[in-house]
Amino acid sequence: MTLTDLHLLSAAEAARWIGSGKISSEALVSACLRQIGEREEAVRAFSFLDPEHALGAARAADAERLEGMPIGPLHGVPVGIKDILDTADMPTERGSPLCAGRMPNADASVVARLRAAGAIILGKTVTTEFAFFGPGKTRNPHDPARTPGGSSSGSAAAVGADMLPIAIGSQTNGSTIRPAAFCGVLGYKPTRGLISRHGMLTLSPTLDHVGCFARSLEDLALLGEVLSGFDARDAATLRTARLPLLQTLAAEPPLPPRFAFVKTPHWQRTDADTQSAWRELCERLGPQVEELELFPSALEAWHWHQTIMEAEMALHLDREFATGAAHMTSVLRQLIERGRQLRAFDYQYALSRIEPMYASFAELFEQSFDAILTPAALGAAPRGLEATGDPAFCTLWTLCGMPALSLPLLETAEGLPLGVQIVGPRLGDAKLLRTARWLAGMMAAQ
Amino acid sequence: MTLTDLHLLSAAEAARWIGSGKISSEALVSACLRQIGEREEAVRAFSFLDPEHALGAARAADAERLEGMPIGPLHGVPVGIKDILDTADMPTERGSPLCAGRMPNADASVVARLRAAGAIILGKTVTTEFAFFGPGKTRNPHDPARTPGGSSSGSAAAVGADMLPIAIGSQTNGSTIRPAAFCGVLGYKPTRGLISRHGMLTLSPTLDHVGCFARSLEDLALLGEVLSGFDARDAATLRTARLPLLQTLAAEPPLPPRFAFVKTPHWQRTDADTQSAWRELCERLGPQVEELELFPSALEAWHWHQTIMEAEMALHLDREFATGAAHMTSVLRQLIERGRQLRAFDYQYALSRIEPMYASFAELFEQSFDAILTPAALGAAPRGLEATGDPAFCTLWTLCGMPALSLPLLETAEGLPLGVQIVGPRLGDAKLLRTARWLAGMMAAQ
Repeated sequence: MTLTDLHLLSAAEAARWIGSGKISSEALVSACLRQIGEREEAVRAFSFLDPEHALGAARAADAERLEGMPIGPLHGVPVGIKDILDTADMPTERGSPLCAGRMPNADASVVARLRAAGAIILGKTVTTEFAFFGPGKTRNPHDPARTPGGSSSGSAAAVGADMLPIAIGSQTNGSTIRPAAFCGVLGYKPTRGLISRHGMLTLSPTLDHVGCFARSLEDLALLGEVLSGFDARDAATLRTARLPLLQTLAAEPPLPPRFAFVKTPHWQRTDADTQSAWRELCERLGPQVEELELFPSALEAWHWHQTIMEAEMALHLDREFATGAAHMTSVLRQLIERGRQLRAFDYQYALSRIEPMYASFAELFEQSFDAILTPAALGAAPRGLEATGDPAFCTLWTLCGMPALSLPLLETAEGLPLGVQIVGPRLGDAKLLRTARWLAGMMAAQ
Repeated sequence: MTLTDLHLLSAAEAARWIGSGKISSEALVSACLRQIGEREEAVRAFSFLDPEHALGAARAADAERLEGMPIGPLHGVPVGIKDILDTADMPTERGSPLCAGRMPNADASVVARLRAAGAIILGKTVTTEFAFFGPGKTRNPHDPARTPGGSSSGSAAAVGADMLPIAIGSQTNGSTIRPAAFCGVLGYKPTRGLISRHGMLTLSPTLDHVGCFARSLEDLALLGEVLSGFDARDAATLRTARLPLLQTLAAEPPLPPRFAFVKTPHWQRTDADTQSAWRELCERLGPQVEELELFPSALEAWHWHQTIMEAEMALHLDREFATGAAHMTSVLRQLIERGRQLRAFDYQYALSRIEPMYASFAELFEQSFDAILTPAALGAAPRGLEATGDPAFCTLWTLCGMPALSLPLLETAEGLPLGVQIVGPRLGDAKLLRTARWLAGMMAAQ
């Protein structure tokens, strides 16, 4: 590893090296900025970047360490922040001209936790319009003619282009898992309620999650530990005991994990590359995987998700809609118009189905399986930049608030990444990371 | 106090006497049954009563005490349960022919807690149709030509007719405070989330509260302590520390309390008796009371409450409506029909206004007042049994989840009870009880 390759370090490794004095934060941030300089014109991952500000923060982090001040688990490590999470020192423009020039007056809880852990907020990454479907300027780092996915387009692409070791995104439907898969990086949507959404744009209080991107499972575990915790300013956060993500990830599974392969009703829409890659994956897993048919109520999940998302987005984007509908894409405007017409009855009914449906999944995990396997998307990143792909393979797990990871373990015939999505029971994040490590190890071994 | 007068004991006093062996539970329950025998034909408070079952439970409680078993704070004390709270050993018919013969298979959490405290579930008390406006058979114990109020008609009337020292009801709008006022007893709607609603008919998860009736503040404090506590089966219950209701009630206020007299927009609908009684009350309080005009957002509260209640009732009574609308009163059917048409947008908007509105009340309590004073109802119990009176003076506090008490401190020229409603900040239940005791003492002294 040379000084110019430092941008390839994982966040955990970089933090260890910075902590021991082997490298400086300034050197690491410089290497990342150099990589950004090389790739940003093609990838366009950032909506805001002030290299001098980032270098200043890195130098300050180095000085703190030399002064013997206590340092956190991400001390001096740069991170990218999706531009729907407020930053007190950088604009937060939410991918909409309606928010151009918007300067929040406080950090989002996630950003505050990252700073407290010593991280350097390197810049803001591109989001689709209000984290919905209207694409931003970002391109896929593997092929600039393809979408990076969305809505966390810039965070996924920046990590995929080795500009940053880690980045933060969000997921209301498939906005972390899908771009992670398309950009060939690891994506992690934690259990609902683990990470505070305070200071993040609200689309849907029921469905919004914070998401994480990295190139190693250890980094996802580290981010999960740094970001998790009760926050009185997000009523949905859980007062749960700290999940030992790093410790569990480092351990071996007591037995080889058992997987449920869930095709969902959207399997027939997947492409040939996806279907053949999954045939191969299931063959490799042999008796450790079993195909699982969804129970009938789960088949309604996509409809319930849509009802909840549209109804809640209509309320939470009401001010923008009332005053600035002309500055919205038609896809967003139409969603809000649909959402405004939904009945309270149907909205409440959809909400009321989540827990009974999840109870059936919880029982499956309790009795039969360690994790669910399912594609992260219909296929590789689609060609074109006018859309960000289909989130259908993420909807069910987002609705249930279950933890999900996308692992770049498969690829198409032409070498584009395909994500394997692995899903666990609520609060099973630690074991899910361990199971993912086992799966990645098994795939690497053969 | 003779053996035949034991039904006049407070629950706390009765529990002390039973605990010390001064009286038996059987004697107490017998006295209550005797009073019920005398008054029930006129008052009609009970929907279910099995005297032998109650006496059997009383004898068992006496035997337990004599065997030296540990006894709870309500050991051997009879209590009435509104017929929307499930009892495993008695029918729970919810005031509707659609539920005739319904036998729950488990106790409501409240009932289980009462039994664990040693209480004798004496019988089920009359509720209006599904705890909404369709009246039951109960009559006002002060005048059988007048309504007892609703929806907790039987619980209020049974305590008002000295049939029972304490009874349990509910409140979604004004269903505890209003009948308490009409029947001349104490009513207590605790802070939202203190008492589990598990096993109680759900009309509106946002608005439903358990309520308590008694003839002494000590009994309300005792009930509050016995019934409060987190319950995983009611997600709205709070993980708050135990509120020291009895201890605080027994203490003197450090300073004479300061009251805000809130007329609300419904003041102009109160009758002449109410207005003159309140003029006198305010004169007595002198500088300790100040009239407080509601801030503008609070004026919307009645509309928001209606939206939430109608939308949620439409969902939660959907099965009954779908299969049995013909067996519903038209007032309930029309509510459900309205609720089914409400928009998700307006429902969510109403929900979203509760916390900002409450924040203004919280600031008032923090800075200026110990309690809010306001009528419990528009006047004394109206004549006639075809309606249960107007809950308008309860709506705002129910919507905000603030604790409220009705105190029978005023009366009309012809001697009918008028309730003084006293309201505190959320979780301020203990101090509210103490303030109520101060107010009752002040009124008794003059």
